[in-house]
Amino acid sequence: MNEPPPSLAGASLDSLAAPRSTMESVLAGYEAREAERLAGGHPNREGLAWIEGAFVPLAEARIPLMDQGFLRSDLTYDVPAVWDGRFFRLDDHLDRLDASCAKLRLRIPMARAELRETLVELVARSGIRDAYVELIVTRGLKFVREYESYENHLYLLVTPYVWTMPLRGQMRGGRAIVTRTVRRTPPGAMDPTVKNLQWGDFVRGWLEAMDRGSVYALLPDGDGNITEGGGYNIFAVKDGALTTPSRGVLEGVTRRTVLELAAAMGIPAALGFLPVEALYHADELFICTTAGGVMPITQLDGQPVAAGEVGPITRKLWEAYWAAHYDPKYSFAVDYG
Amino acid sequence: MNEPPPSLAGASLDSLAAPRSTMESVLAGYEAREAERLAGGHPNREGLAWIEGAFVPLAEARIPLMDQGFLRSDLTYDVPAVWDGRFFRLDDHLDRLDASCAKLRLRIPMARAELRETLVELVARSGIRDAYVELIVTRGLKFVREYESYENHLYLLVTPYVWTMPLRGQMRGGRAIVTRTVRRTPPGAMDPTVKNLQWGDFVRGWLEAMDRGSVYALLPDGDGNITEGGGYNIFAVKDGALTTPSRGVLEGVTRRTVLELAAAMGIPAALGFLPVEALYHADELFICTTAGGVMPITQLDGQPVAAGEVGPITRKLWEAYWAAHYDPKYSFAVDYG
Repeated sequence: MNEPPPSLAGASLDSLAAPRSTMESVLAGYEAREAERLAGGHPNREGLAWIEGAFVPLAEARIPLMDQGFLRSDLTYDVPAVWDGRFFRLDDHLDRLDASCAKLRLRIPMARAELRETLVELVARSGIRDAYVELIVTRGLKFVREYESYENHLYLLVTPYVWTMPLRGQMRGGRAIVTRTVRRTPPGAMDPTVKNLQWGDFVRGWLEAMDRGSVYALLPDGDGNITEGGGYNIFAVKDGALTTPSRGVLEGVTRRTVLELAAAMGIPAALGFLPVEALYHADELFICTTAGGVMPITQLDGQPVAAGEVGPITRKLWEAYWAAHYDPKYSFAVDYG
Repeated sequence: MNEPPPSLAGASLDSLAAPRSTMESVLAGYEAREAERLAGGHPNREGLAWIEGAFVPLAEARIPLMDQGFLRSDLTYDVPAVWDGRFFRLDDHLDRLDASCAKLRLRIPMARAELRETLVELVARSGIRDAYVELIVTRGLKFVREYESYENHLYLLVTPYVWTMPLRGQMRGGRAIVTRTVRRTPPGAMDPTVKNLQWGDFVRGWLEAMDRGSVYALLPDGDGNITEGGGYNIFAVKDGALTTPSRGVLEGVTRRTVLELAAAMGIPAALGFLPVEALYHADELFICTTAGGVMPITQLDGQPVAAGEVGPITRKLWEAYWAAHYDPKYSFAVDYG
């Protein structure tokens, strides 16, 4: 990593590998920035949207009732993030959005350069330095069968960073279940590589997780393999190597970052089938998404995962993941003016 | 039927069975009312919505961007219709909406009596005499995991009658395909008896239908059986008897009406597995939904269904279906004031 986090300025690469201090430094840096955001009087500190050419406070942002994105969930979306004032892998997210749109025969009604500028302006106007940024492209007001004759709709929004697992909670890891009441929608029905908001299976998973005193619902594919959860990919660590499902899942940008970091650190990693059974014998488990990063799972179906603590490989990847947010290869600074 | 359509007033039961005249009478009555609607100057003739206690023209109706009904398609809905000024099976639709809400742990934020009154007022204020009425209940502004702590959202809208198959086109029947690129989302992933707007599989089906020069996409279940299409159930007629899929489909109110009418007319009918193969050997096929009624399918995968014409049982059910809209057992008149 070219630029370590400011809180680690002057730290050696060895210190990057010292687990406690790094996890704690990232947390301390974030909490300090959050305190500043909450104490500051910025009018858009809770979020801002871009709708039909206008910037509007998030709480007032509205979309047409008749948008097919609502009436048929006929849409795709993507979520890049901003960390400590730097946009992370923005073009990778925009590339994936392009690919999702192509598969759904949607067209983003704005050229890439303008879209990029508008996103940066949206974030800058919000003043939010740790931000969750969402782009949604919907079919628009007309039915899919008329798709060639009209413009699709684009909605943009920024909110403070969204944590699938609270950052502080990541220090001890989360409780997950493998769902019994619901399987993941198979790729033959809906293509999970097209990022979509048709989360009926995940909603059932969350309800089951609540019923079973847990938080994270990991969905099987109906054929004995695990797939993913609501918005995140799953990794298992066994004998020092990573495995993550190759089929029936989103091609996550965070998953890709993890795989790139693992390669750089010499940790073997494979995409393939990940049997549910293997989760019960894993040395470490983690889930990952832009909305939360690398999130350790330390309890599965009521039992500890191995020793029930955040494992060493998860911790190394966790630290490398947040350090990567300062790497100019992956990120650039937003000018907040 | 207690009250035949006005255009058939004085007609004998025998004449109800005379196919041409009845199909033509329903069409003529509808087209006359449509001409009146379009010529009339009613300000809401293209539709009206009820949002947060206010009636607003449909084209101006907007919902919060942050509604989980949009951001996760975390919602259910139902669609009763009004035909020739009469609400059809309204309480059956509201009962099903209650059941869908219970399964998703949603609460309609309005008591049944007030909801009924509001719907009637919405239709009356629109002046639309042949109307598609939609009720949508969303999770609201907060994530499903917080479902016990807040109110869900309710949106109501009325538009002119929506035709899955144009009424005039029903005289000759529609062209359908069995999809090859997509299967129906299985009930183990999303419960199809909870009426939902997660139509990604149907959207894929429509795109395939367009690629193959067809209109209606019938989705298989991945195990050799047919399920349903976007918003409609499927019936096959063979040797004088009806079969419709029992599993992996919506429990349609129109399907139920068809089954009730078939029972009254002595036509045998069964719910069960309906193999895709059986469709190619059927004597008649039809699809059915509130947005279109009983819609004959006369071409499947480029080949005629039997003789390629609307069959006699489909025709009998079609006529009985529209006649039932005047039966006080099923419908009541809206007072348009």
